[in-house]
Amino acid sequence: MLESLFRPKAVAVIGASSKELSIGNRVIRNLIDFGFRGSIYPINPSADEIRGIKAYKSILDCPDDVDVVHMVIPAKFVPQAVEDCGKKGVKHIIINSGGFGETGAEGAAIEKDFLERARRYGIRILGPNCQGVINTDAEIRAYCNFTFTKPDPGFISIVALSGGVAEVIHQAFAQMGVGTRIYASNGNAVDVTIPDIMNYLGEDEGTRVIVTYVEGLRDPANFMKTATAVAARKPILAMKAGRTKEGAKAAASHTGGLAKEDIATDLIFKKAGVLSFRDEGHLIQAAAAFATQPIPQGNRIGIITNTGGPAVIATDVLVAAGCTLPPLSEPTRALLRGKLYPEASIGNPVDVLATGTAQHYRACMDAMMADDSFDCVFVNFVTPFFVDNESIAREIVAVSQQRRKPLVCNLMTDKQQWSEVVRILREGGVPCYPLPGEAARAMAALVHYHFIRRRETAAARTFADVQPDKARKIMAKARAAGRTQLAAAEVYGILDAYKIPAAKWRLAAGPAEAAEAAAKIGFPVVVKADAESVLHKSDMGAVAVNLGSASAVKRAAAQMQKALTAPDLRFLVQKYLPGGLEIIMGAKAEEGLGHAVVFGLGGIHVEVLKDVVFNLTPVSAPEAREMLGAVKSAPLLSGVRGQAGVNREKLAEILQRLSQLLTDHPDIQEMDLNPIMAFADKAFVVDARISIKEPA
Amino acid sequence: MLESLFRPKAVAVIGASSKELSIGNRVIRNLIDFGFRGSIYPINPSADEIRGIKAYKSILDCPDDVDVVHMVIPAKFVPQAVEDCGKKGVKHIIINSGGFGETGAEGAAIEKDFLERARRYGIRILGPNCQGVINTDAEIRAYCNFTFTKPDPGFISIVALSGGVAEVIHQAFAQMGVGTRIYASNGNAVDVTIPDIMNYLGEDEGTRVIVTYVEGLRDPANFMKTATAVAARKPILAMKAGRTKEGAKAAASHTGGLAKEDIATDLIFKKAGVLSFRDEGHLIQAAAAFATQPIPQGNRIGIITNTGGPAVIATDVLVAAGCTLPPLSEPTRALLRGKLYPEASIGNPVDVLATGTAQHYRACMDAMMADDSFDCVFVNFVTPFFVDNESIAREIVAVSQQRRKPLVCNLMTDKQQWSEVVRILREGGVPCYPLPGEAARAMAALVHYHFIRRRETAAARTFADVQPDKARKIMAKARAAGRTQLAAAEVYGILDAYKIPAAKWRLAAGPAEAAEAAAKIGFPVVVKADAESVLHKSDMGAVAVNLGSASAVKRAAAQMQKALTAPDLRFLVQKYLPGGLEIIMGAKAEEGLGHAVVFGLGGIHVEVLKDVVFNLTPVSAPEAREMLGAVKSAPLLSGVRGQAGVNREKLAEILQRLSQLLTDHPDIQEMDLNPIMAFADKAFVVDARISIKEPA
Repeated sequence: MLESLFRPKAVAVIGASSKELSIGNRVIRNLIDFGFRGSIYPINPSADEIRGIKAYKSILDCPDDVDVVHMVIPAKFVPQAVEDCGKKGVKHIIINSGGFGETGAEGAAIEKDFLERARRYGIRILGPNCQGVINTDAEIRAYCNFTFTKPDPGFISIVALSGGVAEVIHQAFAQMGVGTRIYASNGNAVDVTIPDIMNYLGEDEGTRVIVTYVEGLRDPANFMKTATAVAARKPILAMKAGRTKEGAKAAASHTGGLAKEDIATDLIFKKAGVLSFRDEGHLIQAAAAFATQPIPQGNRIGIITNTGGPAVIATDVLVAAGCTLPPLSEPTRALLRGKLYPEASIGNPVDVLATGTAQHYRACMDAMMADDSFDCVFVNFVTPFFVDNESIAREIVAVSQQRRKPLVCNLMTDKQQWSEVVRILREGGVPCYPLPGEAARAMAALVHYHFIRRRETAAARTFADVQPDKARKIMAKARAAGRTQLAAAEVYGILDAYKIPAAKWRLAAGPAEAAEAAAKIGFPVVVKADAESVLHKSDMGAVAVNLGSASAVKRAAAQMQKALTAPDLRFLVQKYLPGGLEIIMGAKAEEGLGHAVVFGLGGIHVEVLKDVVFNLTPVSAPEAREMLGAVKSAPLLSGVRGQAGVNREKLAEILQRLSQLLTDHPDIQEMDLNPIMAFADKAFVVDARISIKEPA
Repeated sequence: MLESLFRPKAVAVIGASSKELSIGNRVIRNLIDFGFRGSIYPINPSADEIRGIKAYKSILDCPDDVDVVHMVIPAKFVPQAVEDCGKKGVKHIIINSGGFGETGAEGAAIEKDFLERARRYGIRILGPNCQGVINTDAEIRAYCNFTFTKPDPGFISIVALSGGVAEVIHQAFAQMGVGTRIYASNGNAVDVTIPDIMNYLGEDEGTRVIVTYVEGLRDPANFMKTATAVAARKPILAMKAGRTKEGAKAAASHTGGLAKEDIATDLIFKKAGVLSFRDEGHLIQAAAAFATQPIPQGNRIGIITNTGGPAVIATDVLVAAGCTLPPLSEPTRALLRGKLYPEASIGNPVDVLATGTAQHYRACMDAMMADDSFDCVFVNFVTPFFVDNESIAREIVAVSQQRRKPLVCNLMTDKQQWSEVVRILREGGVPCYPLPGEAARAMAALVHYHFIRRRETAAARTFADVQPDKARKIMAKARAAGRTQLAAAEVYGILDAYKIPAAKWRLAAGPAEAAEAAAKIGFPVVVKADAESVLHKSDMGAVAVNLGSASAVKRAAAQMQKALTAPDLRFLVQKYLPGGLEIIMGAKAEEGLGHAVVFGLGGIHVEVLKDVVFNLTPVSAPEAREMLGAVKSAPLLSGVRGQAGVNREKLAEILQRLSQLLTDHPDIQEMDLNPIMAFADKAFVVDARISIKEPA
């Protein structure tokens, strides 16, 4: 659907200008300089030509069909111009101008106006307030953009709302000698969205890897759906900024309120299989490796070096990132012993020495490519003046182009003095990095993507023994009563409906009834005041724990009756279960996305150490198990030093039942199972809260 | 003492060669090409001239004094050549050749031989197996080195054993357009050490910042002393590699066993006030900022930008690194409102818009330099084609050169298209980074160094109420008995001697005596078997806790007597102190360095979460307090949600008394106070172990 936006045959510029430093001039210059294969139509009411190209008074005067129109005119003229484009049969408009939604109500009204007109004519809009697109395909060469980086053709496509960061990334690729396939920055994104463009890039054969930058997601569900589908076909590398409160505020100030400090974006990236980065440099360096290298089959790295220290740094980074450096197999050692200098160190790293030749490097690379002990080959290469560095570079290119296993190169050189070495490696598509840590992190990203591809996935389990209607009725009743916070009995009723095990409980109207209930449950018990007006129970003396007798229960309930004047006061009597491991689970509705679910150990683990993990609903069985293992305190679940472990499968099941409850009932705003007491055999919720959304 | 090594007037090359690709030729070429201000003497028995310079048959034939001699000859000829140099009165020899200690016993013998000769003549040796030195000082221009990076003059000096990493760092500076002052790589370092060179650089006026890379420290105490002294005068930026087991192994393979996986190096860096980096890129980027910028007076950053997203990234990085982004003061806002475009965003970041001019940037920079709300100024600067970017660059240079507050620049440009902008900023000494995260981390490093400079330091406290002799006698007695593991009574005796409070205790020979002791201490008590042969008490049933009566004590002791057949079996009866917060402290001798001390909370905090902090003796009062605050579980010390805190000052005192004990008794190999039970008022050691070093 975006085919002719990215592969236009004719581009017109409404607002084309003869003034050198104007965007209306620059766009035309960029199209010419970049060798656009199609026709260019400057539109200007008073000029005959612009940059030597015949200009037209109106888009309606253009002799041929126009695929893409740039608009570089004041906002107020845009709606009429869109109308004209509609009449002309234009398919896409890139609105470079600003002055729309980002500036306030007046601009928003203009935006609404031109959007309605565009929809009427079936025109798709990129922007407004955007840079535009670039396509380096030799058949197209479309530089529909006013920025200045002139990319070589390549395999990486970049897409972002923010022209600033997209440009930074683009410049970095250009500086590294890494080519680009397609570049798209869509500014206010009132029509064509990031997922739209991602879908296109997913289909584009020339795009091997997609790079994106976000400060927030407008339509998280759509992003999730698209990213999941596209990431299954090709790697998506993404960075989210606005992570700190201050950063989110800065983002909001330039986007007009889009960004927020959230965890949902990270969870979406993870669930969709998007490779997430916190450092734009790491993202850029990784993308360069993805552009030309195959995805590895594992995390076992072989290192070849001609200098010591840089291989040590690379080793540290690789190992810290979860890679291993297995020893060479004995046949490989024997082979290399016959081919390298006697003083060469035949380990992993293999040190061919500074005097190592192209033949030495080739022998090592071939050996590691052939040796089943390795999934990836890492090359440190400093260019001493006394060896034939160009030949070494050519051998690295030759091996890299076999694409048997991924190869990255830490090229340590003076780019001016050794320009030929640099050229050979660049043109050969070898991902080269001046610093060993950069090269190692790029390699680790390839490995990380392998693990994402290989991760166990499954549809979320659907438990057949649940009673959604029972839960729905409870919530409906509370809503009808004007409440969003559910009473304890309601909460336990909902848990019952989803077979989420809770400590045995009964409701009692008064102290005497409470004592009877306790006797039926069995001592010791907990007594909790249950009234909507009593929310923070422990702060108000509305909980009494470890009551061992009927008289203790009566006394406690009577005291609560005295202290709390709630007219709806009742008592929840519950089995007291000491000695288990405190677990917490919880959930919070995420706009447009279902719920974020949290898991952790209770007490200091959550309160002091903030040791919790999050995921998005629906939570599958492998995801539930992964969450259990992802907290730092996970060893406590399995038991440490004399303490028994707990039943992890039971906890994983509760997480999945919780997920099903949330999925069935999007109206749940927030809920806490805090704590769940977990034991070697079972686990029971002993306190819980549920709040539902305000009626719309 | 190293003056003439770094500022030679005459350099000779023994092993000078006519062969283009030999080191003996390259060193001469480098000296010539770099414009060495002194005399060059090629030494070659058979050539008349090398690269147009008259050659001599022997160093003894040189017509003048020689400060520095390069040796590029096989190892076996080195001792005689050193002898000749001695006769000539040479002051320094750089041995570029390898084939010495790094290759085995034979090489080590040659090394010993030439070293003895050098000492006899008072010659200092750099290397062997090293690159050499470079000094860019306009009066010197000494390129006594065979490598290839040709630095501009600058303010950063680089020193490292590893030529590979030193070269990588050097190349990165050259690529960034950042100059170097002195470069030194000393390979095997058999004579001139890293601390020797650091001392020299500390005195060198042209060096503003020292960069170093280590894989391990040969003489940690000397490094500590030197680094502490030098870091007080100018910043030292350091990176330690070989952090992972695999990395340390890789390091050992190329240095012949120097590196080890240790924590001591980090502790030394911290104690000495060295700025430590885990990423060579971060180190390089930070050094570029230190080279030209003043140290800030605080962590409050003002950001100026002409593009949105990159400022968001910078904000995230700065805030995550502990910086703040205060709002502009009202007068500053008012001032800027009159000077910027009406649409400009006058917050922090200030967004001058892509169309912002040099005057706009200047107004913002001036305002932030003058506004007391800010300690640093951060500039994002993308170069749109439609503004006068060169003028913006010139204003940034002008403000940077005032050196009122540090300024760094995230310059987002195409270096080829905007080469003049790049040139203006480079020559103006503005630290420029293509990525916002890089610029932000460099700025954060300046701030970090400010906090290191400002940190509270103090001499370790000396407690006058301790009895070193008592402790010494206890250890001497154990050693005389052939033991390195002290018995419990000995351990408590030593703690007593240093007034480290322990739970009340008494020794008892048998069950009856134990019951008497318990009665004197007061119930409940713990009974522990105390015999050298019983080391892992809790595993062997040799500890009984919470004994509430004389009969219980008797029974427990009798059971132990039955179960344990140790001839030296006695009983340690100790007050049982439940309910406190478990603390652990410990220590381990670090070769050549005193002891590493550990602090943390006990139980899962140390066993599962590994939440502990380390320091080196002696531990001062501010250091002890900092350690208490540095564990993640620190809030528990102050009390959380209803639980009382503990007496932090008492714990800090115990740490300091422990430090004094260790300092007074370097013979202590390892000790544990595990746990210490801490309460709101007091703290008591309830279990402890001490082992002393094997007799030498």
